Amino acid sequence: MCGIIGLYNNPEAGTFAYMGLYAQQHRGQEGAGIVTCDGDKMYSHTGQGLVSDVFSDSKIFDNLKGHYAIGHTRYSTTGENNATNVGPLLFNLGDSFISIAHNGNLVNLTSIRKKLQKNGAIFQTTTDTEIIIHLLARRTEPTLTKRIAGTLKEIEGAFSIIIISKEGLHIARDTKGIRPLCFGKLNDTIIVASETCALDLLGAQYIRDINPGELLTVNNFGESSIQFETPDKNKSHCIFEYIYFSRPDSQVFGENVDKMRRKFGKTLAEESTIDSADIVISVPDSSNTCAMGYAATSNTKYEIGLIRNHYVGRTFIFPNQRLRSLNVRLKFNTVKGVLDNREVVLVDDSIVRGTTLRKLSQLLKDAGVKKVHVRISSPPVRYPCHYGMDFPTKDELAANKHTVNELAEIIKVDTLNYLTIEGLLKSVSLNKDDYCTACFSGEYPIEIKDKVGKEIF
Amino acid sequence: MCGIIGLYNNPEAGTFAYMGLYAQQHRGQEGAGIVTCDGDKMYSHTGQGLVSDVFSDSKIFDNLKGHYAIGHTRYSTTGENNATNVGPLLFNLGDSFISIAHNGNLVNLTSIRKKLQKNGAIFQTTTDTEIIIHLLARRTEPTLTKRIAGTLKEIEGAFSIIIISKEGLHIARDTKGIRPLCFGKLNDTIIVASETCALDLLGAQYIRDINPGELLTVNNFGESSIQFETPDKNKSHCIFEYIYFSRPDSQVFGENVDKMRRKFGKTLAEESTIDSADIVISVPDSSNTCAMGYAATSNTKYEIGLIRNHYVGRTFIFPNQRLRSLNVRLKFNTVKGVLDNREVVLVDDSIVRGTTLRKLSQLLKDAGVKKVHVRISSPPVRYPCHYGMDFPTKDELAANKHTVNELAEIIKVDTLNYLTIEGLLKSVSLNKDDYCTACFSGEYPIEIKDKVGKEIF
Amino acid sequence: MCGIIGLYNNPEAGTFAYMGLYAQQHRGQEGAGIVTCDGDKMYSHTGQGLVSDVFSDSKIFDNLKGHYAIGHTRYSTTGENNATNVGPLLFNLGDSFISIAHNGNLVNLTSIRKKLQKNGAIFQTTTDTEIIIHLLARRTEPTLTKRIAGTLKEIEGAFSIIIISKEGLHIARDTKGIRPLCFGKLNDTIIVASETCALDLLGAQYIRDINPGELLTVNNFGESSIQFETPDKNKSHCIFEYIYFSRPDSQVFGENVDKMRRKFGKTLAEESTIDSADIVISVPDSSNTCAMGYAATSNTKYEIGLIRNHYVGRTFIFPNQRLRSLNVRLKFNTVKGVLDNREVVLVDDSIVRGTTLRKLSQLLKDAGVKKVHVRISSPPVRYPCHYGMDFPTKDELAANKHTVNELAEIIKVDTLNYLTIEGLLKSVSLNKDDYCTACFSGEYPIEIKDKVGKEIF
Amino acid sequence: MCGIIGLYNNPEAGTFAYMGLYAQQHRGQEGAGIVTCDGDKMYSHTGQGLVSDVFSDSKIFDNLKGHYAIGHTRYSTTGENNATNVGPLLFNLGDSFISIAHNGNLVNLTSIRKKLQKNGAIFQTTTDTEIIIHLLARRTEPTLTKRIAGTLKEIEGAFSIIIISKEGLHIARDTKGIRPLCFGKLNDTIIVASETCALDLLGAQYIRDINPGELLTVNNFGESSIQFETPDKNKSHCIFEYIYFSRPDSQVFGENVDKMRRKFGKTLAEESTIDSADIVISVPDSSNTCAMGYAATSNTKYEIGLIRNHYVGRTFIFPNQRLRSLNVRLKFNTVKGVLDNREVVLVDDSIVRGTTLRKLSQLLKDAGVKKVHVRISSPPVRYPCHYGMDFPTKDELAANKHTVNELAEIIKVDTLNYLTIEGLLKSVSLNKDDYCTACFSGEYPIEIKDKVGKEIF
Repeated sequence: MCGIIGLYNNPEAGTFAYMGLYAQQHRGQEGAGIVTCDGDKMYSHTGQGLVSDVFSDSKIFDNLKGHYAIGHTRYSTTGENNATNVGPLLFNLGDSFISIAHNGNLVNLTSIRKKLQKNGAIFQTTTDTEIIIHLLARRTEPTLTKRIAGTLKEIEGAFSIIIISKEGLHIARDTKGIRPLCFGKLNDTIIVASETCALDLLGAQYIRDINPGELLTVNNFGESSIQFETPDKNKSHCIFEYIYFSRPDSQVFGENVDKMRRKFGKTLAEESTIDSADIVISVPDSSNTCAMGYAATSNTKYEIGLIRNHYVGRTFIFPNQRLRSLNVRLKFNTVKGVLDNREVVLVDDSIVRGTTLRKLSQLLKDAGVKKVHVRISSPPVRYPCHYGMDFPTKDELAANKHTVNELAEIIKVDTLNYLTIEGLLKSVSLNKDDYCTACFSGEYPIEIKDKVGKEIF
Repeated sequence: MCGIIGLYNNPEAGTFAYMGLYAQQHRGQEGAGIVTCDGDKMYSHTGQGLVSDVFSDSKIFDNLKGHYAIGHTRYSTTGENNATNVGPLLFNLGDSFISIAHNGNLVNLTSIRKKLQKNGAIFQTTTDTEIIIHLLARRTEPTLTKRIAGTLKEIEGAFSIIIISKEGLHIARDTKGIRPLCFGKLNDTIIVASETCALDLLGAQYIRDINPGELLTVNNFGESSIQFETPDKNKSHCIFEYIYFSRPDSQVFGENVDKMRRKFGKTLAEESTIDSADIVISVPDSSNTCAMGYAATSNTKYEIGLIRNHYVGRTFIFPNQRLRSLNVRLKFNTVKGVLDNREVVLVDDSIVRGTTLRKLSQLLKDAGVKKVHVRISSPPVRYPCHYGMDFPTKDELAANKHTVNELAEIIKVDTLNYLTIEGLLKSVSLNKDDYCTACFSGEYPIEIKDKVGKEIF
Repeated sequence: MCGIIGLYNNPEAGTFAYMGLYAQQHRGQEGAGIVTCDGDKMYSHTGQGLVSDVFSDSKIFDNLKGHYAIGHTRYSTTGENNATNVGPLLFNLGDSFISIAHNGNLVNLTSIRKKLQKNGAIFQTTTDTEIIIHLLARRTEPTLTKRIAGTLKEIEGAFSIIIISKEGLHIARDTKGIRPLCFGKLNDTIIVASETCALDLLGAQYIRDINPGELLTVNNFGESSIQFETPDKNKSHCIFEYIYFSRPDSQVFGENVDKMRRKFGKTLAEESTIDSADIVISVPDSSNTCAMGYAATSNTKYEIGLIRNHYVGRTFIFPNQRLRSLNVRLKFNTVKGVLDNREVVLVDDSIVRGTTLRKLSQLLKDAGVKKVHVRISSPPVRYPCHYGMDFPTKDELAANKHTVNELAEIIKVDTLNYLTIEGLLKSVSLNKDDYCTACFSGEYPIEIKDKVGKEIF
Repeated sequence: MCGIIGLYNNPEAGTFAYMGLYAQQHRGQEGAGIVTCDGDKMYSHTGQGLVSDVFSDSKIFDNLKGHYAIGHTRYSTTGENNATNVGPLLFNLGDSFISIAHNGNLVNLTSIRKKLQKNGAIFQTTTDTEIIIHLLARRTEPTLTKRIAGTLKEIEGAFSIIIISKEGLHIARDTKGIRPLCFGKLNDTIIVASETCALDLLGAQYIRDINPGELLTVNNFGESSIQFETPDKNKSHCIFEYIYFSRPDSQVFGENVDKMRRKFGKTLAEESTIDSADIVISVPDSSNTCAMGYAATSNTKYEIGLIRNHYVGRTFIFPNQRLRSLNVRLKFNTVKGVLDNREVVLVDDSIVRGTTLRKLSQLLKDAGVKKVHVRISSPPVRYPCHYGMDFPTKDELAANKHTVNELAEIIKVDTLNYLTIEGLLKSVSLNKDDYCTACFSGEYPIEIKDKVGKEIF
């Protein structure tokens, strides 16, 4: 996924970028970095781990000088998870430096990389971000903006991008608007971020989303926007941003995420209610609102039956399976007074491997729950994402290998129901053709030219 | 506060101790440590920071050999917060080592320390734990158990203690049972912990609490218990364990914490409801159940209006004020769809300085809330705690300096109400004389002989 | 300067490379690194500081797998002294990695770099080593050896190079043989090093020097040598290698360094003896033999009057002036019994800034020396080196700004004499046209096309 | 061994202590530390490794406030070599801190320690330094000076001690003057150090040695000296200080070390010269002067045949045998031009295990030496030292197990001769009864009450 932030015209751009990253920590926990610029020199600090770990010393901010900045929280979808790959990386382009914060995945990465290497390009990392820089280095248009526009035409896939150069910030989004990218202001400071929660934390006002196919340049002369390419008639907004990725207090693709989740819960209750259930509980915290929506519509009591340990990160993002398995027990504890001798609806947002739910089900039974009914507020995830989400391979996706009934048996619950794709699309605001549902339906809005993923290099 | 754990008869005692500390992380975030013993040698690893930071390398566990262990998460109430003071500390007692995990505060610490120093004792730390060791080193009873019993008679105050020696584990609790200490089993493994949530995580069965005045020895010959002193007729269980400190899924002083909190919420609603309120929200997560109890009794809708950032620890425990003030904004974000144009009851567990609530009130207003009614599920904290909680000095306690009405103005809320002491004591199960309510009432169950606190050394 | 080492056909190539670097530590103390290869994968470890600091953990060698290796001790003449610039750097060339250990300086570095950047090259470092890799990446000859040969024709200046690739080692030296590069064997292991002292430490046999203009490829098929360019009729061996840089026990350009230094001392005594002197002492250790030669020829007693502190490195190589000034006092101590009331000839190898000698002179006077006569075993250094030695700028060179008499006054000695250029060239074995004496004479054997030095980027 | 330093009345006492330690680095390379005091608070910095490693950051000195200081370089003779044991350690004595820099070894350490533990003392380290502090803590005399004097009477063995307290510096030396301790001044600053080379580096003037049995107190009221005990009629100055430990430029026990070594060389030549030898070479650097003395008296040419690598420390002090064996080859290289086809006298200061000489002999043969005659400027070391030198056990001492002839065969040299005890004592200045020669003769001047050494705890 990755979360990105860009700020212009702020004497504390570096510190603000830090706070903007902090607000977007949920979008990437493997590394974080900030690059600032004073119009002449660039300053950079990056590291592996959480934002608060990487920026754990206040002296770091003394070095992040300048009135504009970009920042990036990394979540590895391409390239290995190592120190070299943590961005934003500084690249020496002729006589000056340039850096990119990038959220998304290119679909023609491998072929471009091979072509570049044949022509003498030497790569420092295995990230797709570096591809973009190499393309840019070889373009010959007279202005940087035109060179960036030319580069963006060469790449295909999902991308929300903020480039920092001596000239200013250069902000762009792919023609289908797959990943979010919002624009806001705090007095004279311009702020661009993946999610509006970053604007909120900084006390900034949300103005608009960056348009699909737009290239916005922010510099001392002000803001100037061009379309580097005509946007597609239909957008392909990633609907999974609503289901899981985005923070509930963000506004994404024009809608409040929390509100969307509550609607998913309501529609789910309409589709599959359980009369015998005593209470509805959620897998905290991502499914809380959804469970409340489900409880309201199904007229069942909402309770807090699982408590999340504050000292762990989100399950979905841990990179290896063994840790994940350990963490389920460390992460949740049951409230016996609420659960004992009850029949329970457990609402969760999605099933990827099914491991967590199987263990939660056992935890609930151990706490005295009589029956566990699992309700998932999204359709079965059957296909990999090529646009920036780190789903496992098809073979590892539980819903790809098993029917719903088989899965219910595997995870040892009494009933299991998913929200239908129709129900999902009915719950959202835009036309259903404006969302990417490829992970549920297998209908990919952009052709996958190269095999993309961690294993390619 | 501090959380402690002891295990006996387990080949992976060190790893289990780690998990037991992890479950009790909320009781102390400044440092953590484990000491293991194989009956001959002792092995130790301690560090500053969270449990997961201190034990971040799996190789550490290879060195924590032996079949029994003690562990400790530190929250500094006496002594400075520095590396030297992080326990459990190993002390060289004649020809062998000994170590203590200790939760609580002694009230005659300063006078004992001075007496010991006059007699040639040289201290390594400024902790009260070391006092106990020095007393022990000077006792001359023929057996270690008797020397420990003799030592425990010399000290006064609140203490739950686990000592590890070549002979086994030695577990004790003060005569008033101020801090919790529970005993459980997992097959042949004996586990002692501050809270039952540690037993739950390890899959162990809760057996009983360690009795006030009890000294329990666990070794190769089994368990043997003596009363080192007659327990007091009335206990002095710290009622704040229910209000804030303990985890909601723990069972403390014979009751489920979550259930107690729900009762506090219900009693609070009985005492002070607001008819005009649209919704009840909580300061997550510690007040969630309380808010649900309040909502049910006051017949107002419960909603999630504040979302807690998963990447921060609990406010109460940060050691300095400046960080605390920054963290309020980083820690909570508002769900505008829920809050906008509503009149809101905000339920919180307690007010210490009032800073957090003042900022939360502002956050809510910024999100469109019309009126903020704050309801606190405990009485005003007016007096310092001398038995192990790190309240600030009397002068810093908001409720000590201001009336409730003044405070409502200071924190800028429309109404403010506390639970009464009577309401609080009505909600709990035991006789009201069995709880310590000194922080609310100023009635200290144990005489404070020495000025206790961080400033003494 | 830099010291380099290459090994082929040795199961412990990495460890041997380490020892070879250790022997050549005097050639560069800012950083060190080793790259090994097993014919498929490459393994690398580099760091800032001394060889023993960079390779301070025996586990490092477990990772340096493979039967061939290159190593490098860095002494920054181009590029800043920072972690990124420490080699040997690994570069991703299409589908495989390549790395270079390089000793010397290119004279057309800036113009090549600019041309490459214009064509889209993105640089990771500010070293001239990376220039070579970028040239190589863009060549299209059918074999790697031919591409390397083509690249070497494009670069000008002083270079002794060892390239490691999946195919083997590729060893080359510039057409004038400016820097040394020797070739030896230890049983079946082939060893290439800057100085023979590395061969000696490894117990290897010296075979021959790599020829000027030679490109030697060592791989599974054996050794194959080509001339990538016709060597110049006259060589330009750096005569400063004898004076200061090389280790006295090395054989360089066909002669034993220690023997050369003794000859310089003898010639110096022939040119400028002092009858009134009681003893001859040296600035230890680099001038010891020289002083003994001087003492023998001038028939004056050789004594040890200055003792070097073992815990400091060589003055010449510290990168900043302030440290250098402190270090003179920390580095030398005087033996009063030897010096008191004596008239002393102090023999040193060269004067760069003159700071050290000024302070040594004072130290000697403080120890009771009546008169200090300084004799320098090389001519005045008046011109910068563009071929790999880090002399300061012309303005900082003492001999460039002052006459010998002025200098004697500045450094506060009674008399000061240098060896003449004629004396110097008379003492060496080859024809005088086969040495570079540019730093003394200003006659540069290779035209300086670009301004070279640390300040260029 | 250990090197110690104390300074009084200097605004930069911490920095000066650092320089004083640096000058005495050869006396202990395992750790270093400094404690400063401003008359109220104490400041401390200690660490493992060389002085320059421990004090590698200039910020350290900002924290070492105060106008007086003590420093210590550690060389473990008792206690393990670990971080806890690195001094000077700060001890909390009642209401203030105290610290000791100590050079020497107590002979009744074990019995005192046991007695203290029986009386409740808890030890933090396994050093004999801590014993002294515990004794001090239990004394009841009315003034600190008297308590120190009382403590010093309780301990037996070799000790040169500098104590720092809020009251000033307290300096003492055992009644036999086994280890050196000198006193000097730099303007108003008082300096006490193990060796005069520390005074020299600081530019201070040597005044006198601290007397055996003297306790000198330096504070705001000036200097006041008492005899805590009557000095022994005969001193027991460690003669090995001349042979190996002290720096050649130091003045120790009233004599210049370099001069003593030259005398040892001369006496050695008188006792055992070799007519057929072509040259005399030394094992650099500790035997240089000695070899020059030998060469002069035997009328043989002195040459530099072995060159020491500057990047290694002194052999004798490395704590384990395996490293020592590797280091011989890394440490010395041969000058073939000097050695080839020659018959050589190799002068060394002592033989402990014989390993180094055996390897050096091989190195010389490899360089073409025809015959190697080893001459040792001290008698055979046959007995362990109980007063502060880390000789190995009797069983590991080469001269204890073998006759001189056997040893010559083992180390593979053509002839081997030692200086006789008579020759040694003839060369020094004081009466022969004023030196301790126990390591040669087995006649220990102080009875060894307890087994002393690293293995005891």
